[in-house]
Amino acid sequence: MFAATAFAQEPAAADAPAKPLSAQEILDASPDAHWRPLDPANTLYMELDSGRVVIELAPQFAPAHVGNIRTLAKEGFWDGLSIYRSQDNFVVQFGDPTEDEDERRSLGSAKAHLPAEFERPAAGLDFTVLPDADGWAPQVGFVDGFPAGRDPDAGIAWMAHCYGTLGAGRDMAADSSTGAELYVVTGQSPRQLDRNITVVGRVVDGIERLSVLSRGTGPLGFYEDPAQRTPIKAIRLASEVPEAERSHLEVLRTDSATFAAATEARRNRRDDWYKLPAGHIDLCNVPLPVREADTGDAG
Amino acid sequence: MFAATAFAQEPAAADAPAKPLSAQEILDASPDAHWRPLDPANTLYMELDSGRVVIELAPQFAPAHVGNIRTLAKEGFWDGLSIYRSQDNFVVQFGDPTEDEDERRSLGSAKAHLPAEFERPAAGLDFTVLPDADGWAPQVGFVDGFPAGRDPDAGIAWMAHCYGTLGAGRDMAADSSTGAELYVVTGQSPRQLDRNITVVGRVVDGIERLSVLSRGTGPLGFYEDPAQRTPIKAIRLASEVPEAERSHLEVLRTDSATFAAATEARRNRRDDWYKLPAGHIDLCNVPLPVREADTGDAG
Repeated sequence: MFAATAFAQEPAAADAPAKPLSAQEILDASPDAHWRPLDPANTLYMELDSGRVVIELAPQFAPAHVGNIRTLAKEGFWDGLSIYRSQDNFVVQFGDPTEDEDERRSLGSAKAHLPAEFERPAAGLDFTVLPDADGWAPQVGFVDGFPAGRDPDAGIAWMAHCYGTLGAGRDMAADSSTGAELYVVTGQSPRQLDRNITVVGRVVDGIERLSVLSRGTGPLGFYEDPAQRTPIKAIRLASEVPEAERSHLEVLRTDSATFAAATEARRNRRDDWYKLPAGHIDLCNVPLPVREADTGDAG
Repeated sequence: MFAATAFAQEPAAADAPAKPLSAQEILDASPDAHWRPLDPANTLYMELDSGRVVIELAPQFAPAHVGNIRTLAKEGFWDGLSIYRSQDNFVVQFGDPTEDEDERRSLGSAKAHLPAEFERPAAGLDFTVLPDADGWAPQVGFVDGFPAGRDPDAGIAWMAHCYGTLGAGRDMAADSSTGAELYVVTGQSPRQLDRNITVVGRVVDGIERLSVLSRGTGPLGFYEDPAQRTPIKAIRLASEVPEAERSHLEVLRTDSATFAAATEARRNRRDDWYKLPAGHIDLCNVPLPVREADTGDAG
């Protein structure tokens, strides 16, 4: 074996039948029923020169923001705008960077004011609890594929900031976001933002198109020269895109036995490379598997 | 205030004297004695076309590996080699990607075999404990600026995998690393690697030159086409570089009162933007401040 392959995340399958399955082997053996397609009405395609970023929206957590985002996408709000901020180990942010409010792009039919949607009642959510300790929340786990926190005593739940989380930028007032200015987490999970800002979804595919963007050299990673911004060709709801142009992705159901088994395999790595399995995993270290719905797809 | 400035990490200083100081205000008011220069004998400069990456080595944790790395740098081992792997949300890796061992670059005077240095006795280390819970280690904190874990019962300590951590790639055997193949963490802290691999230091400056590299499309993020690799012009010990060409950086001492106060300000964000301070911080979310030693420096 070659040193460059150092710490394989998914080592080759072992032949010895007594060994516990690796996460990859568990996924390979999973029944189709443990996967679900993305709902086109809750899926955004961000089209960049480098390709497509696929985002799943979370109306169960942020119905007002997701409603506005759907309207903005339908009306082409972001088309021709840009990613105007990339802060190392933190976020990229996009929308309209124009400072003068009077000169900013109109929100069209979207609402100019929305309530803050930082948290919601825990009741009514199918919350799959992760068995590990976390200093940021009384409980953490997954709701419909989204990393989330929960406070059983207070009866509330919220989406957590992990790599790929999509949130709605705001000003000082809690209710100052509209969904027009959005950020994606591209660094170490900034969980301090949990319950301080409205989270609206997460990147399901193509995040590397965002995470490799040159860091802005201005304060907070804003680009100092507008020419450094990354143009957004379009952001569309998948349901508004012709069927032939859609990405046909499936995500592993986080309420499935396959997800539970794959997560346990990650908590305790039993392949030969690991000498000391951690017996633990942090919420934002849990992989959220995605696959092509069929092999003929270009998604 | 403008929505694009959404969640300022360091908001402008407030005038109200009753307010607790922000982390930035604490740093701005810090005495010089709370900072230390990097030791040129323990500092590596990785020179890329995009500029310099500054690395601090940790001989207190990995003396044999750091000894080998010093030798390899002195003898120009990495000069003309490359970064040959970039796996999204995980690591970049560099060294000699040649698969045939007989054709790989000679280690020169460096040793071909080293002991595994996954952990060491806790005794003799100045360990500054972070007050927060962590599921990966009985205690976490900082030793000489390095994020670290500690098991007081077992009397051992180890370096933790955070963003910027530098480690020595290995094969299946625990003692198969030489320090010639190195990786830098560029994603969510992969703490499952703690105590499973030898950590040798961390990137102090210029990590964005690594974290923006295009992701390799081969398994584990290896580049499929050698032309995609990033050439390494040179890796040198700072002590071997003429004084005029050195970066003169200072890092905040993690055993200082300034570091303790700045970390506490991060644990409980009290600026107006934050509505609900977390009262918690994870080891790998704690900023490790760096500054230029003097303003005339190009560092």
